[in-house]
Amino acid sequence: MIQTPYLLFLGDAPDALSAKVAQGIKDWRPDNAVGQFRMEGCGTTVGLTDMTLQEGLDAGAKTLVIGVANRGGIISDAWKKVLVEALQMGYDIASGLHNLLRDEDEVQRAAKVHGRTLHDVRIPSVAYPIASGVKRSGKRILAVGTDCSVGKMYTGLCMDAEMRARGMKSTFRPTGQTGILITGGGVPLDAVIADFMAGAVEYLTPDNDDDHWDHIEGQGSLFHASYSGVTLALIHGGQPDALVLAHEPTRAHMRGLPDYQQPALEDLRDLALTMARIVNPACKVIGISINTQHMADDEAKAYLAEVEARMQLPTTDPFRFGAEKLVDALEDL
Amino acid sequence: MIQTPYLLFLGDAPDALSAKVAQGIKDWRPDNAVGQFRMEGCGTTVGLTDMTLQEGLDAGAKTLVIGVANRGGIISDAWKKVLVEALQMGYDIASGLHNLLRDEDEVQRAAKVHGRTLHDVRIPSVAYPIASGVKRSGKRILAVGTDCSVGKMYTGLCMDAEMRARGMKSTFRPTGQTGILITGGGVPLDAVIADFMAGAVEYLTPDNDDDHWDHIEGQGSLFHASYSGVTLALIHGGQPDALVLAHEPTRAHMRGLPDYQQPALEDLRDLALTMARIVNPACKVIGISINTQHMADDEAKAYLAEVEARMQLPTTDPFRFGAEKLVDALEDL
Repeated sequence: MIQTPYLLFLGDAPDALSAKVAQGIKDWRPDNAVGQFRMEGCGTTVGLTDMTLQEGLDAGAKTLVIGVANRGGIISDAWKKVLVEALQMGYDIASGLHNLLRDEDEVQRAAKVHGRTLHDVRIPSVAYPIASGVKRSGKRILAVGTDCSVGKMYTGLCMDAEMRARGMKSTFRPTGQTGILITGGGVPLDAVIADFMAGAVEYLTPDNDDDHWDHIEGQGSLFHASYSGVTLALIHGGQPDALVLAHEPTRAHMRGLPDYQQPALEDLRDLALTMARIVNPACKVIGISINTQHMADDEAKAYLAEVEARMQLPTTDPFRFGAEKLVDALEDL
Repeated sequence: MIQTPYLLFLGDAPDALSAKVAQGIKDWRPDNAVGQFRMEGCGTTVGLTDMTLQEGLDAGAKTLVIGVANRGGIISDAWKKVLVEALQMGYDIASGLHNLLRDEDEVQRAAKVHGRTLHDVRIPSVAYPIASGVKRSGKRILAVGTDCSVGKMYTGLCMDAEMRARGMKSTFRPTGQTGILITGGGVPLDAVIADFMAGAVEYLTPDNDDDHWDHIEGQGSLFHASYSGVTLALIHGGQPDALVLAHEPTRAHMRGLPDYQQPALEDLRDLALTMARIVNPACKVIGISINTQHMADDEAKAYLAEVEARMQLPTTDPFRFGAEKLVDALEDL
């Protein structure tokens, strides 16, 4: 686990898009961040108090989290100067960047000298077991998509927030680097060795109270030729009691695969349920999450109504219109 | 690729079972082995000429292949003495052992000093790409199982041998360490990073002649909670034109999973075809391979006849009764 709270490093982020990890932390776990650290040339903000490294420490920050994508995949000298200073002052550092903190000699050395921890959340830090397939206590829900990047993480985060607002027992279980930085822990599933994928998901979602729900962050799609194996490991390691179907209706083709079309929601429902029932015969599809970000308000509402009528399942865009319907459906289970 | 031919190292193998890698090489690629090397205390043979290291070299051997499982997962001092001597004499060494040759200091050092190559085939030596999903030329066949270890590798090897005997263009494509040692190359799929599994299978089975068949070695099962993700990556990376269903009828439960029963062959057929048609709409199931090793002759034949009548698909045990039926079905496609 990454020690909280964080100071969010925005560096010289040129725009909001490049700071989306920091924005995610601020949106979903505001208590995890005491403020933001911006360098000369930063062109955006996530709306937190600007702090120096010392002010962050004084406010209780334990970890400096890289909340920004680096341009050209290079950790610049200007960044490194800040990171080394932070380690000297007593911060741990956490990063989801493709190039690893541990591969930067100055940063690695400073961490060692000052006894601090570098969290490169893109790669596993645990030797996961092979999945046992044994039934665990507690409940689990997983969003499965017609495609990659259709809003599965946001679906889980929205439902988790709504359930906690209702006083229900709920935990979001990240399987990707953004989710791991938001909550402070999880499994970077796409970087796990093939034989241990399902075991990593079992490890992530252990026994729990009978009325506790884990929201397992979805990855890939059963219909995506590049990543379907990861998705199936999530289903078979997660043993979900409930599935949400996730869809983005404006795609011209599967993400990154111009020769492949998205499946119908009916096909996703049937295939995902067949797969889930191999490990949990009681599994049900409880609703549909539509990512309407590229649709006008009227268009989005009409589409949701059409899908809801056709599929006979509660349907919403939980990020835009709230997750109440989906949580109601879960409570009715 | 591992350089052939091999000298097969049997070490102090106590029995035939512990030497099954060497036996597989002798059975399936006899031209790949010039002889066998046995140490004091070896209790078995694979029926090749016994040779010293020097005699192996004189017969043309390039690589010493560890054809035996090591007791207790330890590479003994007696083994190491032979391995170091072989490197000094000019052999490469190839091994599928869990503990790696490169982790043995003396062996690693000798390889470096003498400029020889250590092949630890349990772990990938290539940075595989992410799968593109693009259609390749040539044909591909994959065996999918009701469970793990039901005879998928043997099905592919038997069909490949029969097709080559008929003068058809055919290549066996290994995805596990035994197959890699038998043929000299392949992808150790269970050790590949999740995101690159399907890409590794694309890499293994590139464009080929239109009338050439790749026999992709199957792994795991869509119905096996621990390994199903690996199986799905094989299907989606392999884009098979043909599937063979593989089954071992005497199992009391799924391998290693006492709470799970094997699926019916009908369920395997439907689910595997659904999955394969996502990437290759023309995919067909062409036959059934039954592992009858635990059945008497009469019992085996009666079972095969029953399955063939019920499933309306050519059904055989290709290792016991020949692969003709399955290859006939492939030719009829």
